[in-house]
Amino acid sequence: MPTVVRDELVIADRTFGSRLILGTGGAANLAVLEEALVASGTELTTVALRRVDAGGGTGVLDVLRRLGITALPNTAGCRGAAEAVFTAALAREALETNWVKLEVIADERTLLPDAIELVAAAEQLVDDGFVVLPYTTDDPVLARRLEDVGCAAVMPLGSPIGSGLGIANPHAIEMIVAQAGVPVILDAGIGTASDAALAMELGCSAVLLASAVTRAADPPTMAAAMAAAVRAGALARQAGRIPRRFWAEASSPAL
Amino acid sequence: MPTVVRDELVIADRTFGSRLILGTGGAANLAVLEEALVASGTELTTVALRRVDAGGGTGVLDVLRRLGITALPNTAGCRGAAEAVFTAALAREALETNWVKLEVIADERTLLPDAIELVAAAEQLVDDGFVVLPYTTDDPVLARRLEDVGCAAVMPLGSPIGSGLGIANPHAIEMIVAQAGVPVILDAGIGTASDAALAMELGCSAVLLASAVTRAADPPTMAAAMAAAVRAGALARQAGRIPRRFWAEASSPAL
Amino acid sequence: MPTVVRDELVIADRTFGSRLILGTGGAANLAVLEEALVASGTELTTVALRRVDAGGGTGVLDVLRRLGITALPNTAGCRGAAEAVFTAALAREALETNWVKLEVIADERTLLPDAIELVAAAEQLVDDGFVVLPYTTDDPVLARRLEDVGCAAVMPLGSPIGSGLGIANPHAIEMIVAQAGVPVILDAGIGTASDAALAMELGCSAVLLASAVTRAADPPTMAAAMAAAVRAGALARQAGRIPRRFWAEASSPAL
Amino acid sequence: MPTVVRDELVIADRTFGSRLILGTGGAANLAVLEEALVASGTELTTVALRRVDAGGGTGVLDVLRRLGITALPNTAGCRGAAEAVFTAALAREALETNWVKLEVIADERTLLPDAIELVAAAEQLVDDGFVVLPYTTDDPVLARRLEDVGCAAVMPLGSPIGSGLGIANPHAIEMIVAQAGVPVILDAGIGTASDAALAMELGCSAVLLASAVTRAADPPTMAAAMAAAVRAGALARQAGRIPRRFWAEASSPAL
Repeated sequence: MPTVVRDELVIADRTFGSRLILGTGGAANLAVLEEALVASGTELTTVALRRVDAGGGTGVLDVLRRLGITALPNTAGCRGAAEAVFTAALAREALETNWVKLEVIADERTLLPDAIELVAAAEQLVDDGFVVLPYTTDDPVLARRLEDVGCAAVMPLGSPIGSGLGIANPHAIEMIVAQAGVPVILDAGIGTASDAALAMELGCSAVLLASAVTRAADPPTMAAAMAAAVRAGALARQAGRIPRRFWAEASSPAL
Repeated sequence: MPTVVRDELVIADRTFGSRLILGTGGAANLAVLEEALVASGTELTTVALRRVDAGGGTGVLDVLRRLGITALPNTAGCRGAAEAVFTAALAREALETNWVKLEVIADERTLLPDAIELVAAAEQLVDDGFVVLPYTTDDPVLARRLEDVGCAAVMPLGSPIGSGLGIANPHAIEMIVAQAGVPVILDAGIGTASDAALAMELGCSAVLLASAVTRAADPPTMAAAMAAAVRAGALARQAGRIPRRFWAEASSPAL
Repeated sequence: MPTVVRDELVIADRTFGSRLILGTGGAANLAVLEEALVASGTELTTVALRRVDAGGGTGVLDVLRRLGITALPNTAGCRGAAEAVFTAALAREALETNWVKLEVIADERTLLPDAIELVAAAEQLVDDGFVVLPYTTDDPVLARRLEDVGCAAVMPLGSPIGSGLGIANPHAIEMIVAQAGVPVILDAGIGTASDAALAMELGCSAVLLASAVTRAADPPTMAAAMAAAVRAGALARQAGRIPRRFWAEASSPAL
Repeated sequence: MPTVVRDELVIADRTFGSRLILGTGGAANLAVLEEALVASGTELTTVALRRVDAGGGTGVLDVLRRLGITALPNTAGCRGAAEAVFTAALAREALETNWVKLEVIADERTLLPDAIELVAAAEQLVDDGFVVLPYTTDDPVLARRLEDVGCAAVMPLGSPIGSGLGIANPHAIEMIVAQAGVPVILDAGIGTASDAALAMELGCSAVLLASAVTRAADPPTMAAAMAAAVRAGALARQAGRIPRRFWAEASSPAL
């Protein structure tokens, strides 16, 4: 478990100056999304394939290109390993990248990952030469398994997608971080800035969020909040917080 | 309860660009303290009187003057209304300011405010023409009482001084904010950046902390973390967070 | 801080076999209230004076007498020391007891205690020969002050009356218990059984609740739940719980 | 999601009067274990196979027989599907029961279930005619998968075995309960009585614990605490708790 946070986020062979990864889903329109992307300072943004290939409607990609943000295709909404692998292959063609955020969802109500299908898809995609970033549960064993099959990062949820419940089980995230040899990226459930700061304090290397910004009352302002929060949490982790004490301790001693 | 956070913190007749107030207690030495003050961007810093009048040893004040930071005298360690009022009067002489952070402590183990002595001291100091910023418990009734006697802000604790336990009772802070007509400044208990962000998200106007920075392994880095966290929390409050939901909601709909 | 829970609750010179104290407020009707009282096994029940002296309408007292439950008059709704002291005096006449649950409320929205008026009333009532059980905030300093002026117990809230938010600040309750020389009775805020068990695990000597039972969908069943929960928490405190560990520990070793 | 808790726990074709299931691991000696079993009122107790077949050393089984408690063989410590299936088969021979608590552990440090091996083992054992009670993570998708392959109950963890961290993610348990058609039994992580009460309030049908009792300072007293807590939580769920409110609500209205 590294105690020093490097200034840059390194995933596979690439380096990013920002530790905030945005999703584009949920935005009211492209203008607001663009403002939010700028305010967030993100350098990596997920895009669901279905929006990409919707004949000509490549508005999101145009925005990302204009802003110099790397597009990370996302198998959002895929329900089994086969569908996810197929979608990733289409994305590689369409976006000319072998990176993929791998989502294999079990059902519409929870949008939780299907552990078994997820591992199967991850193995296949790694074999096919993809750089795989899997969206996973907060199960430390599953996270380790995904790392073992060759994923370039693990992306545990804080709580269900779009729920805004934050990090429901910080202890699980800490266990994942303690065992991980690849970056741990908190993905899903973030509701507000303090959630994002906490993720970094727990030792995550980055935070991925979409709804928390795109569905906020004022998306660009929330994007700026999240950028500051991720930075705050990373610095705090690096700075080494004071221990928790049951009784008080004066900050103004005799001196 | 204001839903829009203004860009500036206004207390009494003064305006501050930063919403982070630092305490100087607990710093290992002046050089580190100075670095932390700069990194924090603070414009207002508490100084315990006893350190000020320690014959010539006004090093902290010199640092603050050099950095253009306003010194806020603090009656730290005072045990009854009389002692606190007397100390505030001395501070007014020594620092040539009628502002005072009013601490009236009940005992050394908890360093918690003594509600009854606190109100008595606050009344007296307001009568004497002070701008009073009282350190108080998280009791909404006591906070309102302090506002009613004329305090310029109320400064409820998150948890005991130096404990690093964060905001033990967010609901109490929310009740205080909901009823307050003066700025609510979270004072005491902050351990790490996400605590400070949460304070602002709950509606506080500013955060005051000392040990969390001065006793961190790397105080200047933690000061930068706290500055970012306070900004993150203020922006998030202003941006209007998404509601909490039991079940998931897709961020990538058909669109 | 006693580590062994005695089998009986001792307040002043009286002993009770049950550590669950019920309030009668909020009950839909006397029949349901009676059922709940029986199911709870309580031996001590608060009664608001205004219901007692409402000309002949002494239904609640009749029920308590029939069940052999001691009535504890309650200055519920009193807004200042003077009103509370006056009400207590009336109650002593009406109920022929010098015991009083002292409530001095600051306002209708929070129903929180008014610390300053509360201490004033407690001092007066102790001087007047009452056995005073004050409803107080979870402020350890205020609790100690109430003990110092001669109260027979201290009754900190878990959260606001009727809120069902449980124990908002367990750390504060632990600090109160650690310093108390009289019984600590958790009063107000209990929503469900696990809240009551937690109160006892934190070291409280008893739990007082009303709405959680009287306003439950099925009051007698909830009363039975609370009786079991208080017993569970007291036994667990006595039994000495296992420590918390970050990693797992097998319960089935080689042996 | 049933809103009424029946008086009896029904698993497969069997009915139990107690909703507390004990594990025998961690007990200092058989005499203390027997006392704890009696105090708990349990009717179903897990036994790790390795302790059963340890040449003649069938002390635990003798105790269970004498007390009329059903022994539930446990594949504790098994590391893959094959080992677990093999162990279950041995247990069926040795204990003459086709019931099995299925544990497939990933490693010694976390003792967390291995999701993929667990599902494989569960499928095999159901096919082989076992009544399978799987120890699982708190992942709602995995729980549903285990139910779909024919398990007679699902047994999500609260937190790691022996950690005493309680229910780290109550929301996950609520999601499991909301979707389950078989009994949900909270298994692992319970530290004290309020944890067990909470499990039942969240809608679990039973609680399984070992270390919390066997490693407590006073196991029989903690066993009694847990019995009371499980009953309290079940009754509270059945009784219908009051809603949570931000502001107070008087329990003593005019009436």
